[in-house]
Amino acid sequence: MKMIDLAKQAKQAGFALAQYGNAQKNRALLAIADSLAARSADILAANQQDIDYAKSQNISTALIDRLLLTEERLQGIANDVRNVATLADPVGQIIDGGVLDSGLRISRQRVPLGVILAIYEARPNVTIDVASLCLKTGNAVILRGGKETKFTNAILVEVIQDALVKAGLPPLAVQAVTDPDRALLLELLKMDHYIDMAIPRGGAGLQQFCKENATIPVIVGGIGVCHLYVEASADQAKALSVIANAKTQRPSTCNTLETLLVDRRIADQFLPKLAAHLGHLNVTLHSDDFPSDLQKTMSIQPLVSERLSQEWLSLDLNVVVVDGIEQAIEHIRTYGSRHSEGILTADHALARQFVQQVDAAAVYINASTRFTDGAQFGLGAEVAVSTQKLHARGPMGLEALTTYKWVCEGDYLARG
Amino acid sequence: MKMIDLAKQAKQAGFALAQYGNAQKNRALLAIADSLAARSADILAANQQDIDYAKSQNISTALIDRLLLTEERLQGIANDVRNVATLADPVGQIIDGGVLDSGLRISRQRVPLGVILAIYEARPNVTIDVASLCLKTGNAVILRGGKETKFTNAILVEVIQDALVKAGLPPLAVQAVTDPDRALLLELLKMDHYIDMAIPRGGAGLQQFCKENATIPVIVGGIGVCHLYVEASADQAKALSVIANAKTQRPSTCNTLETLLVDRRIADQFLPKLAAHLGHLNVTLHSDDFPSDLQKTMSIQPLVSERLSQEWLSLDLNVVVVDGIEQAIEHIRTYGSRHSEGILTADHALARQFVQQVDAAAVYINASTRFTDGAQFGLGAEVAVSTQKLHARGPMGLEALTTYKWVCEGDYLARG
Repeated sequence: MKMIDLAKQAKQAGFALAQYGNAQKNRALLAIADSLAARSADILAANQQDIDYAKSQNISTALIDRLLLTEERLQGIANDVRNVATLADPVGQIIDGGVLDSGLRISRQRVPLGVILAIYEARPNVTIDVASLCLKTGNAVILRGGKETKFTNAILVEVIQDALVKAGLPPLAVQAVTDPDRALLLELLKMDHYIDMAIPRGGAGLQQFCKENATIPVIVGGIGVCHLYVEASADQAKALSVIANAKTQRPSTCNTLETLLVDRRIADQFLPKLAAHLGHLNVTLHSDDFPSDLQKTMSIQPLVSERLSQEWLSLDLNVVVVDGIEQAIEHIRTYGSRHSEGILTADHALARQFVQQVDAAAVYINASTRFTDGAQFGLGAEVAVSTQKLHARGPMGLEALTTYKWVCEGDYLARG
Repeated sequence: MKMIDLAKQAKQAGFALAQYGNAQKNRALLAIADSLAARSADILAANQQDIDYAKSQNISTALIDRLLLTEERLQGIANDVRNVATLADPVGQIIDGGVLDSGLRISRQRVPLGVILAIYEARPNVTIDVASLCLKTGNAVILRGGKETKFTNAILVEVIQDALVKAGLPPLAVQAVTDPDRALLLELLKMDHYIDMAIPRGGAGLQQFCKENATIPVIVGGIGVCHLYVEASADQAKALSVIANAKTQRPSTCNTLETLLVDRRIADQFLPKLAAHLGHLNVTLHSDDFPSDLQKTMSIQPLVSERLSQEWLSLDLNVVVVDGIEQAIEHIRTYGSRHSEGILTADHALARQFVQQVDAAAVYINASTRFTDGAQFGLGAEVAVSTQKLHARGPMGLEALTTYKWVCEGDYLARG
């Protein structure tokens, strides 16, 4: 199918979808959850085709594990869809309003965005996840998953479309582009007349490609070069446990700690404790700032400066000693990705300064960066984590999939 | 100066500016207003250079009038700056917050965007206008005015920078690029590491150029192909006065009516009245739908279909007869620019259908499209009118120049 036809169909489906209420949208979500269970054998068979292909390509076991669906995982995904149905629907909400001096009655009402283009990589759960959040908010969606999940995505979208038909909703509200040709993505990124927002969920290369080529507004995000700064007054024992949590709880996530900044005034005292504590947790430290004896005995790797602006996504951690809060903030401004940044301190004034001067989606005082997450922040769901400043910042819940319109009413009112 | 250095300076100034409170920012605004008055002779002399150049280039008198500053206009601009000082500062506002189950204390706090790139054309008042709104919200701004106002803009920015120094704020918070070379604009549009938002205020060509070339988020807007649909039940006499207002009150603005849709059931009755009423107001009608005798006697121009998706910005109006509300909505979806769209009707159900199914920044029931404006909507100021759906839609006030950060605090809290 031509991309332009796909986009036009999505637009039409979006217009139709915007007319349905929460009850009808929830019925569709429950129908999807039921269909996922009813057709699990077909889905797992299609998934096996993707797994077989991946194995033939010598793809890493970590990636294959991400691709893999099991009966249990599929059940988990279906439960997530049921959970989305229980969330409050932001569409129709009156944000504000009143009667203006002119007599015009005005209100801002929350409405769906229209058509979302979601671009992602190997995880088949994202297909269901994003589709259900878009449906819940009355948006049509075009799903552009990775080539590794081609067969799985094809059947998942078929299952969704069948369920939409059963629930009386337009099936083309959810469409997939399974052809991996990047030229197709390029075409879609230019269709600002039909597509209202693009969400690339993937590595820095994909984000850059979308930013450079899209005429559609792009939500950039999901890259987290996160820092914690251990200020001199911090409780060092407690700081160690927060650092360990931020680094090791789930190293492959974007809210994981990548560089630790340590105040010079406590470096001599704190660095040995740090090396011991994280050594037990199999974290490899990368630093030039340890005393030379420690550097050797603890087998600390030399710091690679390019690494300061990249995600490790592994049990590796850069450690940099800084001369106080100004230098810590300067380091974060230079190397950070504006995702999640924290200070560990007992000093209220310094905490306040850090919060005010660090430019990031989430700033933390005495807490782990791992909290930056839609569920943790109480949003109920998460479609992406934005590290840009327009529209939505940080974890994006259902509200970030909506816009508003100004609804104005008069009694044949003219402007004076 | 190299654009990269300019952008870096803006970023640093933005960081500095974000630390100032409302009182200090207001002092700077008042200093600017005072300086505009004190240096009016220099400003008018520089403006005369632009006027002389424009005249030598045989530029239209309408455009020259837009360029022209007078003592009185300058006073008006200074008063607008004083008015911005009186507005509430959105920065620092707590949007929402609370304590999460994990014990994390969380709040969303409004903060400046950082650095704004404003691109505009011949009006020198925009220079002061945009600069004062950006300063009020703690943003640094790079001003890229039209080449026609080169001399005026240069001195206006000098006056602003002097006033900033006097008020103790960083002067490079407001910078201008007066070199008209488009290659410089192209460079700036790619500097997403330093610039947080681009606002092009100008014609469709400029908007398209920015959309296609920017890696910075762009606020598209200001193009208004606005419609009114006269439904069969409308009070025709009152409808005429709303239509006249929407078309003639200020034809060069983006919220002006460009195409009138008339329900076929009342066409025979309504079109003659329309032709008579608007004829008196010197409006030229473009339509193929008038009865042929009327078409001749009223000297109605034939409809040019390309014109249906363009702004007239003059006392011209397309008139199209439609078969009911569905066709009206379909016409608006095809040709509208998602700016301002209205229905004139006595039927509540149809009014509701129109509001729900028309996708535009502002939708009107029985009111003129001319109300779509920051001042009219009670925003106190307007930096642009957005016709895209992300971040801000319709008139953008001070709030649209801010983003938020999530501020999170724990007692050395780790994620469980």
